[in-house]
Amino acid sequence: MLISETTVCAPATSGGGAIAIIRISGPQSIEICERIFVPADPKRRLKEQKGFTIVLGDIKSGDEIIDEVLISIFRAPHSFTGEDSAEISCHASPYIQQKIMELLISHGAVAARPGEFTQRAFLNGRIDLSRAEAIADLVASESKMAHRIAMKQMKGSFSDEIAVLRADLLHFASLIELELDFGEEDVEFADRKSLFEIVDRVLNVSRKLSSSFSLGNAVKNGIPVVIAGNPNTGKSTLLNRLLMEERAIVSDIPGTTRDAIEDTVVIEGIRFRFIDTAGLRDTTDIIENLGIKKTHEKISAASVILLLADINEGAGPLNALLKKIRGQLTDEKRIVILVNKTDNDLYGNRQLMQENILPKQDESMLFISAKTGEGIDELKKLLGRLAGAGRLNTENVIISNVRHYEALLHVAESLERVRTGLENNLQEDFIATDIRHAIHYLGEITGEITTDEILQNIFRNFCIGK
Amino acid sequence: MLISETTVCAPATSGGGAIAIIRISGPQSIEICERIFVPADPKRRLKEQKGFTIVLGDIKSGDEIIDEVLISIFRAPHSFTGEDSAEISCHASPYIQQKIMELLISHGAVAARPGEFTQRAFLNGRIDLSRAEAIADLVASESKMAHRIAMKQMKGSFSDEIAVLRADLLHFASLIELELDFGEEDVEFADRKSLFEIVDRVLNVSRKLSSSFSLGNAVKNGIPVVIAGNPNTGKSTLLNRLLMEERAIVSDIPGTTRDAIEDTVVIEGIRFRFIDTAGLRDTTDIIENLGIKKTHEKISAASVILLLADINEGAGPLNALLKKIRGQLTDEKRIVILVNKTDNDLYGNRQLMQENILPKQDESMLFISAKTGEGIDELKKLLGRLAGAGRLNTENVIISNVRHYEALLHVAESLERVRTGLENNLQEDFIATDIRHAIHYLGEITGEITTDEILQNIFRNFCIGK
Repeated sequence: MLISETTVCAPATSGGGAIAIIRISGPQSIEICERIFVPADPKRRLKEQKGFTIVLGDIKSGDEIIDEVLISIFRAPHSFTGEDSAEISCHASPYIQQKIMELLISHGAVAARPGEFTQRAFLNGRIDLSRAEAIADLVASESKMAHRIAMKQMKGSFSDEIAVLRADLLHFASLIELELDFGEEDVEFADRKSLFEIVDRVLNVSRKLSSSFSLGNAVKNGIPVVIAGNPNTGKSTLLNRLLMEERAIVSDIPGTTRDAIEDTVVIEGIRFRFIDTAGLRDTTDIIENLGIKKTHEKISAASVILLLADINEGAGPLNALLKKIRGQLTDEKRIVILVNKTDNDLYGNRQLMQENILPKQDESMLFISAKTGEGIDELKKLLGRLAGAGRLNTENVIISNVRHYEALLHVAESLERVRTGLENNLQEDFIATDIRHAIHYLGEITGEITTDEILQNIFRNFCIGK
Repeated sequence: MLISETTVCAPATSGGGAIAIIRISGPQSIEICERIFVPADPKRRLKEQKGFTIVLGDIKSGDEIIDEVLISIFRAPHSFTGEDSAEISCHASPYIQQKIMELLISHGAVAARPGEFTQRAFLNGRIDLSRAEAIADLVASESKMAHRIAMKQMKGSFSDEIAVLRADLLHFASLIELELDFGEEDVEFADRKSLFEIVDRVLNVSRKLSSSFSLGNAVKNGIPVVIAGNPNTGKSTLLNRLLMEERAIVSDIPGTTRDAIEDTVVIEGIRFRFIDTAGLRDTTDIIENLGIKKTHEKISAASVILLLADINEGAGPLNALLKKIRGQLTDEKRIVILVNKTDNDLYGNRQLMQENILPKQDESMLFISAKTGEGIDELKKLLGRLAGAGRLNTENVIISNVRHYEALLHVAESLERVRTGLENNLQEDFIATDIRHAIHYLGEITGEITTDEILQNIFRNFCIGK
């Protein structure tokens, strides 16, 4: 156990609100709190408290009362970090928080780096690395699906899969290395057929996991959607309707960061990111602009394109637009044709549009009214389906972390070489090296193998107090 | 005891950070938590836990794990509200907080109104009204002095003073009313001399308290300061230096609201509010603008005027400016003459300025360099003194709440009438009415006497979760 000798502290809540939490962890945690704390009941000295208990009292700086607080006590190893820890629950005044931090530091604590509590939990063997990373994702999760992916990772389904793969490979490696030891004698301890089986099994799982990354990553960062269409087809009305209907759900939680990226909507539990449609709204003519680099980039970055048409335009302009857009797209994008303004079908065009616009197999077409809301529920369900809500709802592990993705690509690469080596009856030592590589990369995911650099990169992206 | 039948819940921390707290209070608190919570140790059922203990486990919605949380249990009457309560410490994800709130509400809790927890604490007799109000001030406190005033009020020094006054008056009232009962017989139970003494004592204390309001209120909202002076005398350089040196102190606390009001600086533990000096900076010529209504208003609103001059201008322009400003001011404002740019005294004017600029008795004069920092420490100490740091540092109770101030004015008004009545040997029943008024207003402060309207006005200004 790598229990650190220093005691660290940090605010764990951000400004505003009624209550603030200041965390402290390390061997001196409780002693340091004791020195600045007077319990309301003199008999309840912090030092004598068991873990998972709370004490009420005053934080004092000399004679001056800084705040009336609750201190939660946790005893090693039964704490988040695995160390003695405490959480001070104080009033959320900037002055009080600053003062308590100053007091803790002047009595021997050190200000924690971002993610230092989680890093300590990892170093003390309380959680593996992929679980530690899941905590940051969990804190950041804004949608049901992002939350579900992070929670699964935190609860260890992913680590468990990796552990199984690694155990398989370790077994394989030991057999191969045994042959290596008896190299002169030309014995085969490992049955070649079952070796192939092991490699294929691990290869399949790593490929399945790494192929889930594009979905996982999109869910974490928001599925990119472009609303395209000719001017005055109702693009901003549609966006406003989607924002309006869905934003209300989360608006009761004060200070959520939803507004940081404008035009983000959670639909069917999945976050969709509408990419700079404001820009498209201004320059507007999607056909004319399609050749322009910037518009092109926006459409390239999108997973879904909502192609909006005014029912009163007739089928002509829409078919022209469709033709142009289809030509520009890679097949990974999904086009949804939305015939808008059904509330105001001046020429009775509905039938005409139905007959003359022919969506391809991977395209969909809906009649909607952004103004009255007709068809919007169907659109939402469709967006959910296109975003892979089905795959997300299954029990499959989905990875969303680029570090894991890259490690899995390395695993697959090494195992490809192992497979080729086995096929070509390559020397055991070459095969053994590639297996060791694959084992190494799997170990990087869960943190059996780490470097200071990897740890620094991971934890510096955490917030303070986590 | 007015224990409410409903159970309320609310997030008590604001968005961001690592940890979020959701509070729940009321008779069903623990039962509701129990229904959505699976303890990590199956033996630690919430219902069986004592107060001031913490349980680790998962919040679940059906089969889905929403979060791994810590639940702190508090048992009536030993809780903040006096009711059974719990605090759920979860990861600070907007989705998780929303989901936990939804779960609590779907299992029978009601979303709490702003300040409802504190209101329950008051209604359940845990704290008086002035202490309840102090909690809101404490949460909002950004400077040492604002914090000290709020803490004193929360710890009850003010309530104690009011209680003493009220007891004195109640005694007085009983004597007077006794005389009233025996009205026909023309007896005097109350010695007139000691009656005068009681009234004068209460009157003095109420006046002392109400006269502390302008200071207390200024400390709470920031002491208003105007930086005035001719163009290019270094007004913005001075402001930037003050901001720069003092802001760094609190900048480690993430997300404090310091920036909400621009140009606020805590100096010597007191918050100063620099009123729209940017505006003055733009229009600049304070002499020309002095007649203009808006500039006039700004100067009227200030407690301190920093009058800046360039040492290279010589004494003439400054004396002209001084004359003009002195003519405009009421004597409650303090003028500080700052001769700036001592680092660049091109003509050796220092001596000349010293001899030719004559501060009046209540004015001060300092030589400074906003650029190099010369004289800035002296300026800060001077601002602290002018703001009444001396009075703030004493043990005197200082009131900062406009409701208390108004009540105390009513108390004094009623007691003036009592005094006049005693002097003029007015009938006892008139005197008794005025005493009852004074007692009523004192009772309003601590909440012995309240109306729904008063309570609503007080608690709706609280934040959610407090």
